[in-house]
Amino acid sequence: MCALHWITAWALLLHGCAAGWVPQAPSTRNDIRDCSTDPPYLPPTATNTTARLAALRDTMRAHDVHAYIVPSTDAHMSEYISKRDARLGWLTGFTGSAGTSVVTQDKAALWTDSRYWTQAERELDCNWELQRTTWIESIAMWIMEAVPVGGNISLDPFLFSVATWNSYSQALYGSGRTLLPLETNLVDQVWGDQRPSPSSSKIYSLPAAFTGSSWQEKVAGIRQQMEQHVRRPTAVLLSGLEETAWLFNLRGDDIPYNPVFYSYTLLTNTSISLFVEGSRLSAAARESLSSGCPGPLCVELREYGQVSAHLRNYTLGDVTVWLGTEYTTYGLYGIIPQEKLLEESYSPVMTAKAVKNAQEQELLRAAHVRDAVAVIQYLLWLEKTVPQGQVDEFSGAQHIDALRRAQQHSHGPSFQSISASGLNAALAHYSPSNGSSRTLSAGEMYLFDTGGQYLDGTTDITRTVHWGQPTPLQKEAYTRVLMGNIDLSRLVFPSNTAGRTVESLARRALWDVGLNYGHGTGHGIGNFLSVHEWPVGFQSNNVPLAAGMFTSIEPGYYRDGEFGIRIEDIALVVEAQTKYQSEEKPFLTFEVVSLVPYDRNLIDLSLLSSEQIQYLNSYYKKIRERVGPELQRQQLQEEYEWLQESIEPFPVGSAVTTTATTAMLALTSLLSVLLSGLQA
Amino acid sequence: MCALHWITAWALLLHGCAAGWVPQAPSTRNDIRDCSTDPPYLPPTATNTTARLAALRDTMRAHDVHAYIVPSTDAHMSEYISKRDARLGWLTGFTGSAGTSVVTQDKAALWTDSRYWTQAERELDCNWELQRTTWIESIAMWIMEAVPVGGNISLDPFLFSVATWNSYSQALYGSGRTLLPLETNLVDQVWGDQRPSPSSSKIYSLPAAFTGSSWQEKVAGIRQQMEQHVRRPTAVLLSGLEETAWLFNLRGDDIPYNPVFYSYTLLTNTSISLFVEGSRLSAAARESLSSGCPGPLCVELREYGQVSAHLRNYTLGDVTVWLGTEYTTYGLYGIIPQEKLLEESYSPVMTAKAVKNAQEQELLRAAHVRDAVAVIQYLLWLEKTVPQGQVDEFSGAQHIDALRRAQQHSHGPSFQSISASGLNAALAHYSPSNGSSRTLSAGEMYLFDTGGQYLDGTTDITRTVHWGQPTPLQKEAYTRVLMGNIDLSRLVFPSNTAGRTVESLARRALWDVGLNYGHGTGHGIGNFLSVHEWPVGFQSNNVPLAAGMFTSIEPGYYRDGEFGIRIEDIALVVEAQTKYQSEEKPFLTFEVVSLVPYDRNLIDLSLLSSEQIQYLNSYYKKIRERVGPELQRQQLQEEYEWLQESIEPFPVGSAVTTTATTAMLALTSLLSVLLSGLQA
Repeated sequence: MCALHWITAWALLLHGCAAGWVPQAPSTRNDIRDCSTDPPYLPPTATNTTARLAALRDTMRAHDVHAYIVPSTDAHMSEYISKRDARLGWLTGFTGSAGTSVVTQDKAALWTDSRYWTQAERELDCNWELQRTTWIESIAMWIMEAVPVGGNISLDPFLFSVATWNSYSQALYGSGRTLLPLETNLVDQVWGDQRPSPSSSKIYSLPAAFTGSSWQEKVAGIRQQMEQHVRRPTAVLLSGLEETAWLFNLRGDDIPYNPVFYSYTLLTNTSISLFVEGSRLSAAARESLSSGCPGPLCVELREYGQVSAHLRNYTLGDVTVWLGTEYTTYGLYGIIPQEKLLEESYSPVMTAKAVKNAQEQELLRAAHVRDAVAVIQYLLWLEKTVPQGQVDEFSGAQHIDALRRAQQHSHGPSFQSISASGLNAALAHYSPSNGSSRTLSAGEMYLFDTGGQYLDGTTDITRTVHWGQPTPLQKEAYTRVLMGNIDLSRLVFPSNTAGRTVESLARRALWDVGLNYGHGTGHGIGNFLSVHEWPVGFQSNNVPLAAGMFTSIEPGYYRDGEFGIRIEDIALVVEAQTKYQSEEKPFLTFEVVSLVPYDRNLIDLSLLSSEQIQYLNSYYKKIRERVGPELQRQQLQEEYEWLQESIEPFPVGSAVTTTATTAMLALTSLLSVLLSGLQA
Repeated sequence: MCALHWITAWALLLHGCAAGWVPQAPSTRNDIRDCSTDPPYLPPTATNTTARLAALRDTMRAHDVHAYIVPSTDAHMSEYISKRDARLGWLTGFTGSAGTSVVTQDKAALWTDSRYWTQAERELDCNWELQRTTWIESIAMWIMEAVPVGGNISLDPFLFSVATWNSYSQALYGSGRTLLPLETNLVDQVWGDQRPSPSSSKIYSLPAAFTGSSWQEKVAGIRQQMEQHVRRPTAVLLSGLEETAWLFNLRGDDIPYNPVFYSYTLLTNTSISLFVEGSRLSAAARESLSSGCPGPLCVELREYGQVSAHLRNYTLGDVTVWLGTEYTTYGLYGIIPQEKLLEESYSPVMTAKAVKNAQEQELLRAAHVRDAVAVIQYLLWLEKTVPQGQVDEFSGAQHIDALRRAQQHSHGPSFQSISASGLNAALAHYSPSNGSSRTLSAGEMYLFDTGGQYLDGTTDITRTVHWGQPTPLQKEAYTRVLMGNIDLSRLVFPSNTAGRTVESLARRALWDVGLNYGHGTGHGIGNFLSVHEWPVGFQSNNVPLAAGMFTSIEPGYYRDGEFGIRIEDIALVVEAQTKYQSEEKPFLTFEVVSLVPYDRNLIDLSLLSSEQIQYLNSYYKKIRERVGPELQRQQLQEEYEWLQESIEPFPVGSAVTTTATTAMLALTSLLSVLLSGLQA
């Protein structure tokens, strides 16, 4: 799945995830609102927000707030959020995953990117303007028109990252309006007892077999980094939910698809504070955390809500707190005196987590073998059932989810399955819903982008298939997307190369003929953690590639109103064997760990170089060796045979030598005529 | 020539220009200082700085300054500077182009990058520590060790860019030391009447035949950009010397190799102030500038030294000043109240200048044809004279400079010619000096990186040649450098692509076998302006590529102590013809305008794909069409014949079909045997 997580509006515009971001001309459709009529037309999917807005405006007046900004994220800058944190959704009715709303006494507006413009028109009522951009500058300009000089523009500082706060602050600088952080969340006040309760489900320890190292080893490694840092930080503050989950080998289910739980950690050189609802910890988890008590490896449990107070108290001392500004809120950041801050984009926990050790690599590889079995089962099932017209996008998604769940160590899908047929696949993040789902057919391309959570790893794979006769453009575009996938996957590059400097390799085959795609080329992924795991990937705010990192490689091509193609694999960064070793550190390359064949029906072999074909054949050999035995172990004989056919080696260099071969054939037959003439 | 201009220490480390940045082990050489002996050993190239340092320290005490920072640049952040601005060189004795020095009461240190470490050891005396890094953080840490809390760290704010000032400010933040801008330059005080006088040479107008548009048209275009900008700036402040020279179609010779003159411009929506020594303007230049007086197209001449006072006065009003923070000094920037600033990395003049119009493109193309003649003359001359052992690096450089000067519209070289034989070429920026120059030989590779200033354009080209038997590694490395040059030159890419995201194409063929180079891949270039013209190029702080921009493409490979390879061409960004037109803006590609063949003796054809060979052949066809007639026009018959041989088309696809061809040959001969048998 392509990543939109934590990227700025700027990066979104350049490398955002959605394709086909072209505004649609207004139409006489009845699925979207029409605010130009009197009374306005609202589809049944819209929410009446009049009462909520009135209540919010009352509260704003009471706090002397002239504009209130409500974001879509939570206090941990999570990509997915719990229902309890869906403040934007409750206030506006809009349920898309990314957006910002601003309310004044007489106006209200929602900003979102083009993936969600249609959805917003379906879900908003006419209290809301829809702003088709996500630039903070444009939000600030709207606010400056709506709020007179001297007015207060307010927000909850615990819902905005340091970087986002700075952008608002800069955009409003010198405008005569005040940007006012307000710790009381006004939406929560109005939402009141309608707001969902906090999660109360168990938080559990990962079995040792599924961890790369003990939490004590991880803590020791982070403390070593603290000691070696030139600024000698005394503590690391963890705001990202993945950070705490990874550090302590704990998991929960507070957020859909992401096995994390609400928490903060303050890890100092002498103590460890875990801010979490303690009663939710399993007995084993409690036991594990307290095994080193008292002492520097004793985890002290504190209330989740106490993090600010504790941090304020801690930073009274002669301390330096290391934190990641990309996902720490301005609220927490502001507690720490400037001279006691060590700001980097990512905490050492985030960067340590990004590099998987040998055990974690093995775990992820193993998860991908079982995941490949589920995807191969699905491909065979589709091949048999689609021609009968009985599969639609929704039932297809349900079926692959079920196949994954049947695999060992499964904990369900790693994100909402994308299952898109024909023109729907041109929307890069389309997910079907029951009732409005397109039937799959042998006359259309079908794209599915799905993944699983397993105790040993998180997976994410996209395949695009066609069971009938693809058009020449479809076949060429698919082949060029595949060429991009291959060219990046087989790239050899120096240690410390930034992903953004090499992702053009995944685009070049498309560029050659004037095609391209509008989303990023890859993202990190976790060991039973998030499907989009930062800071790994190919975007401008990703860290340089290092051996042990996992990233997706996922070029695509989307044709509005017609079809969509994406080919996504997960790859591990490994050391490369090169003819020369001229630099201090060995060069790197990728080992693809997703193990599902591509659609032969869509490959135009004549476009591939012999190097690309050789790469494909060696990849297929790896699939044969790794997935074949697992299919047999699971007694999936029909799938086994299907796989053998699908991974037959391609002829190398066939296209290039065709002329010569034809000439040779002619000569040979002439020769045999002559020879038989001689014999006769 | 590869660019180091205006890049931060960080970018330098990642993409810096020099190769082979490995510190050398100390040796018993007598060309460098040895401060460990008593008395210290100083080579004759070192400067005794004891008296200067003592005088500077007196002045520092008088100003209550505990550490004084002296940079290598001038008030315009010029890459090349005049002797009058060589404060660092005068103070330290070090004459390299990039460095920073800091002096305290009892210590003095110089920071420079690895290109200059040996040179620094030759030129510094033992008053100076040599610091082998350029990170501002490391300078700040050294200062904090040398200056106690409460101390003043001072610098001339008119010699530091906004960005550099911010870096120092951040590095010293919370340290208890004060960063103190001091408008009196303390080095100038000590230098006194020994300091060279300001230039007094003429500043002249470019003839209309050599300009792309009149200065009035340029001013109108910039004013239009001001009007259309959302912040509605009332003025643009120009600090870059190239900006003023380009805007008014004026040239001077205040700085070696760069036809610019010391100046500032404040262009407002109603007036134009040019800060320059007015008496230096030629009559025609004065006439041109005053032709619109009085009125909004009247250029008012003001003293160069009045820019600060004028700016202070102008910004009392209700104004907004647009400037480029990459090359505006903190001194000028600080004059403007924060809310009246419109800060962007580059001014609209800098970005307008980067995109050449059709006329400017034609001018640059024409300059490259004549430049190719000079380079071809040089290559033929080398071929004939090198085997006789009569050419050394220095005399070679003198010869090509002379050949260029003989071409029409020549104004000399565009930078100091790099002429490097054998192991000297492993130092990417080596320039020979008379007396210590290596003799060229048919047994070694030879690299020359040279360029010319012509009234119609600035050129820059690198060729590497071998007149004997190259080693297999030399041949492979050369071929892979060439493959990188070709792969980037023939790339098709979407409009608005950032250079840094595609420059890996120039490296991939090297990466494939574990090789790489340590400098950037290209830089912009001017129309009779700077050889390194920002903001175009392939580095992280360059702007996206757009049609009409010129950039160098210059991959290389350097093997310490053995040889160096670089292949550099200038290319124009042009619209590409693609099979599909799926995006709003047409895709782009490069048109190479340098027109000199590569060394056939160094190309291993079997490594090239048939696409690469086809590209080479079409490039050679262009050379034949454009340079051939010019050689004939100049009656250079021998060169003409040399060229025809050098650009013979290469056989396409020969390598690939060798096996098939051999088999066919075998069959054919068998056939003929049989046939002759039949006939017999």
